[in-house]
Amino acid sequence: MLIMRMHHDLILTGLLFVTIAGSALAQSATPMDPLPSWNEGKSKAAIVEFVERVTDQSSPDFVPVAERIATFDNDGTLWSEQPLYFQGLYALDRVRKLAPDQPEWSNTEPFQSVLKGDLKGVMATGMPAIEKLIFATHADISGEEFQTSVRDWLATAKHPQTGLPFTKMIFQPMLELMAYLRANDFKVYIVTGGGIDFVRVFSEGTYEVPPEQVVGSSLDAKFEMTNGIPTILKTGKLDFIDDKAGKPVGIYRHIGRRPIFAAGNSDGDLQMLQYTTIPSDAKDNKPGFGLLVHHTDARREWAYDRDSHIGKLEKALDDAPQQGWLIVDMKDDWSKIYP
Amino acid sequence: MLIMRMHHDLILTGLLFVTIAGSALAQSATPMDPLPSWNEGKSKAAIVEFVERVTDQSSPDFVPVAERIATFDNDGTLWSEQPLYFQGLYALDRVRKLAPDQPEWSNTEPFQSVLKGDLKGVMATGMPAIEKLIFATHADISGEEFQTSVRDWLATAKHPQTGLPFTKMIFQPMLELMAYLRANDFKVYIVTGGGIDFVRVFSEGTYEVPPEQVVGSSLDAKFEMTNGIPTILKTGKLDFIDDKAGKPVGIYRHIGRRPIFAAGNSDGDLQMLQYTTIPSDAKDNKPGFGLLVHHTDARREWAYDRDSHIGKLEKALDDAPQQGWLIVDMKDDWSKIYP
Repeated sequence: MLIMRMHHDLILTGLLFVTIAGSALAQSATPMDPLPSWNEGKSKAAIVEFVERVTDQSSPDFVPVAERIATFDNDGTLWSEQPLYFQGLYALDRVRKLAPDQPEWSNTEPFQSVLKGDLKGVMATGMPAIEKLIFATHADISGEEFQTSVRDWLATAKHPQTGLPFTKMIFQPMLELMAYLRANDFKVYIVTGGGIDFVRVFSEGTYEVPPEQVVGSSLDAKFEMTNGIPTILKTGKLDFIDDKAGKPVGIYRHIGRRPIFAAGNSDGDLQMLQYTTIPSDAKDNKPGFGLLVHHTDARREWAYDRDSHIGKLEKALDDAPQQGWLIVDMKDDWSKIYP
Repeated sequence: MLIMRMHHDLILTGLLFVTIAGSALAQSATPMDPLPSWNEGKSKAAIVEFVERVTDQSSPDFVPVAERIATFDNDGTLWSEQPLYFQGLYALDRVRKLAPDQPEWSNTEPFQSVLKGDLKGVMATGMPAIEKLIFATHADISGEEFQTSVRDWLATAKHPQTGLPFTKMIFQPMLELMAYLRANDFKVYIVTGGGIDFVRVFSEGTYEVPPEQVVGSSLDAKFEMTNGIPTILKTGKLDFIDDKAGKPVGIYRHIGRRPIFAAGNSDGDLQMLQYTTIPSDAKDNKPGFGLLVHHTDARREWAYDRDSHIGKLEKALDDAPQQGWLIVDMKDDWSKIYP
């Protein structure tokens, strides 16, 4: 009754008030569970406890909004990464697509193996082969052409085992976690060992993370005016590898402050978790939360850690108990994997 | 009367509503002039016209909030830069401070000239000398130690001619312009040829630009765990020069989308203005605004352009009319220079 009377007055003063009152009413209702795909248990409780602690003004661990930086690895943390990083699958498809214009590839490694579908042959040639594939598919191309190529690929390519589009192989519980942090005024970044230009193509639509909040590995780029038109050209020179000890450096360069929340899933995230959770300065008493997604669910996703060639998790897993990092058990902690 | 009745109801339903209603009422009042230190005239009118055009949903030039990126050069655009970039003055002071522990500097150039106060001698030795000074004062130091050193310097150092602290030699009209853009949901970045680590120390307190929205030149950095404590160490290797053609590259790396508003004051900003105002793709029909601060006020600040060794403005000045870039005449357009 009161609300009806109020609404009557509000309508008289214009639609703006009604809208505001409506959203305020929604906010004053009992909050919905912000993490519905997380099973009740110590992992979910630890996350909620941390977020409540750093956002409670009366808590000694309160962190001002400007300092609420959260960083998420991408491969294996926000989406799957088996049997090969999805960006690697893009590179292989791209080689096949470009092959008709590159006849010499039919007898040059690693292209020859790619074109024969001999993935083991590609992997056997190791990092130099991978680098050759990356340069052949990611360099000497404008930033915009590259974006278009990745966008087109994501729109049609399917995962070889699940048959799903790659952007459907994202982890629903992690989407909820990022949304929960944003609702608590965190600025959420992706800090990926993958290519910054690759991830930026889908980060906003898929994760609600805008391009300016993606940190990643990069090739060098140069700016040119061609016939009066500005172009960013991706060159064949490696600029930065945002992995392992590179992750804190990437964070330092792009963000310029220590995160208070970091999530990863492999030893490539070890240093990011160290940087996030161990104060480097006695004056810095901000709390820090470290989270590791442990791939334990061979039925719904994949199960791997110490012995995996992709997403190897060993040192970070060993260090987690001592450092107080949360190990999320995919099988037990998540009621749902993909959306 | 209506408002009183409404307020009565609102109080019954809790303070939240009152607060919301109050701020909504404030918003519906006649807006104050957002650019009070800009004289009425074509410069101010052009800025307001652009902002209204891109924020008006019914305009063909409407730009969604996520795409409203604005980039500002720092030296000469947001604060003064004469007789030498202020970061250069920091480096000179730092050499003097470190000299007692570096006895060899008393007979080594360029340190010898610095210690003798012979600035012309320093400048005569050119870029290699400047680089030596930068490495001696900005490298082999942790990110945090560097920040502390810059913060301490800014708190006490005075400009050699005005006697003002450097953070008081910022341009009031540009502060208003940045605030005006933010009020219209622009994300405002600094894109500086100066050091990213240097500018980040004061950008938030001085310009309300958080560290993650500063792009600049950088030395390489590495991450180390020392006795279990994480450290970012600035190394003596140049990583990136965010000047001239480097500015669009810095923007591409850090932001990942083309700005729609860019402000500079020298030929170092030419490519940033080209990148901002000339679409590189026929599908990209976002409008772009380019602004050049022209230092024309020898009485209140400095007057220089084509012949200046600092902030040389020649090519961009020549290109401005054809490109439609706004040339802001400091003397005529600004009623106030410093706050």
